[in-house]
Amino acid sequence: MKGRVLVTGASGFIGRPLVRALVEAGWPVVGASRRRPATDPGVADWIETDLLTRDPQALAAAARAETLIHLAWIATPGVYAHSLENLDWLRVSAALSAAFLADGGRRLVGAGTCLEYDVEPGHSTGPRTIYAAAKHACRLAFERQVAAVEGASLAWTRIFFLLGAEDHPDRFAPSLARRLAAGESAEISQGLVERDFIDVRDCARAIAALAGAEASGSFDIASGRGWRLRDLAEAIAAKAGRPDLLRVNPRLDRAGEPPRLVGDPEPLRLAADITPIYSIDQSIADLLRHWENRAANAHHD
Amino acid sequence: MKGRVLVTGASGFIGRPLVRALVEAGWPVVGASRRRPATDPGVADWIETDLLTRDPQALAAAARAETLIHLAWIATPGVYAHSLENLDWLRVSAALSAAFLADGGRRLVGAGTCLEYDVEPGHSTGPRTIYAAAKHACRLAFERQVAAVEGASLAWTRIFFLLGAEDHPDRFAPSLARRLAAGESAEISQGLVERDFIDVRDCARAIAALAGAEASGSFDIASGRGWRLRDLAEAIAAKAGRPDLLRVNPRLDRAGEPPRLVGDPEPLRLAADITPIYSIDQSIADLLRHWENRAANAHHD
Repeated sequence: MKGRVLVTGASGFIGRPLVRALVEAGWPVVGASRRRPATDPGVADWIETDLLTRDPQALAAAARAETLIHLAWIATPGVYAHSLENLDWLRVSAALSAAFLADGGRRLVGAGTCLEYDVEPGHSTGPRTIYAAAKHACRLAFERQVAAVEGASLAWTRIFFLLGAEDHPDRFAPSLARRLAAGESAEISQGLVERDFIDVRDCARAIAALAGAEASGSFDIASGRGWRLRDLAEAIAAKAGRPDLLRVNPRLDRAGEPPRLVGDPEPLRLAADITPIYSIDQSIADLLRHWENRAANAHHD
Repeated sequence: MKGRVLVTGASGFIGRPLVRALVEAGWPVVGASRRRPATDPGVADWIETDLLTRDPQALAAAARAETLIHLAWIATPGVYAHSLENLDWLRVSAALSAAFLADGGRRLVGAGTCLEYDVEPGHSTGPRTIYAAAKHACRLAFERQVAAVEGASLAWTRIFFLLGAEDHPDRFAPSLARRLAAGESAEISQGLVERDFIDVRDCARAIAALAGAEASGSFDIASGRGWRLRDLAEAIAAKAGRPDLLRVNPRLDRAGEPPRLVGDPEPLRLAADITPIYSIDQSIADLLRHWENRAANAHHD
């Protein structure tokens, strides 16, 4: 029988499909988030808490979990990359994992980012954003904490670019889908940088599998394939039947972006025997359906 | 006339010669440390505070400084590299700089480390130790804070390997000098890695000069020359007249150390018109004199 698993950020973009995946796999799930979701996803318990202001020790004590999947972190588009709040999340994360391990927890799954890989060639010093730097420091802290506890293990995920219907509407793909579904034109940059996109449900499946695995280490949550942003935008516009609405504006190009961030799904497959099952076509179709429904409903109001 | 400069960690290994250099250059210095030093170095003010437990806002308000040189951080040999206390220092440092800037402070000098450069070639993710990762995140936080304040500037120092009589006795060079001065044999590794050593008084001069400069950016505090640890050890033993006491033990070699950490003093020279004046021979002579005096005094007791 599986032991209790505590999921922080359980009502977030990754948290929701992750809780579903864990419940379906028979885990007794303790969800933690600022607000309990309206519909019960079948969890064993739900703890309403604000990790930034409440004592993480109380959460760990209430959860009595063998496994901790720690997703909670600042994620607001346009803000999270350079926010000083990342330093608070770093501190809170280390305090939570310390309390979890002290209370008998043994399996820790951390949520890192592909931006940890964003190291400039040559005489570089590491991640460029406060977000990525804090995530990087968080991994080192988790590794240190886990190494000090007999029988404890850490799987650190490096999550690449997610696609999903319930993503924040200001992110690249949803903002495009939203405008195209509403029949509005959408401006994009030349979009020459290459990124690795993966469906959020595949991300959730991967994290659930890692929770049940024993392997320690860092694991890319990635498809292994690179898409130029321009090509993704054109695929979304084609699927929406509105390629005419896409406008390329080179002034939107941002300087200094890493040209290619593409992950390696092989370590994850070896550690947890799991690979992505959703194609990018399916992800795009779901995203468009979501925004087309929203546009249709808005029209009826 | 120079405005007030607040120095945290003012009674530490770098802080002591730094306060002297600033006082000699005519700065009204506000020193801050857990304990006021026994002899008054001629400061305008001294604030006894423990930054890890006290409110950094109170320190900033009491100091009323235009310039902040923030040295305080965990530095215990054998502990600092992987201690979770680094995360506390990161949080405290960001809170202190925020309070300093909010109270009208405009020139910030941060103490980084050459270990920020310790990035493995290839698909790397940044600094290897919690210490270096936290320092890296601290620079990004300081940059962000300073960028939001009109007229504020940041000089971030990347301090290489220091030599000085009052260094912690457990560090490489002092521990050797101590044993050789006491007539005891000293074991060293093969010492093939190359490091950049600079006298702590030159480090203090450089930081004082940066405090008075206007340049923003990151600056190596370094000699620009690499010494193999083995060669430094042999130079110390030769100067002590006891090359016979040195024993090389390859089992002391540590795996995974970066093979070469050598800085570039040129950006500092351009920004603050300052270069090192102490030769490594002088640093070694001072170090040995210190430990020979200690050994002689111990003998008399």
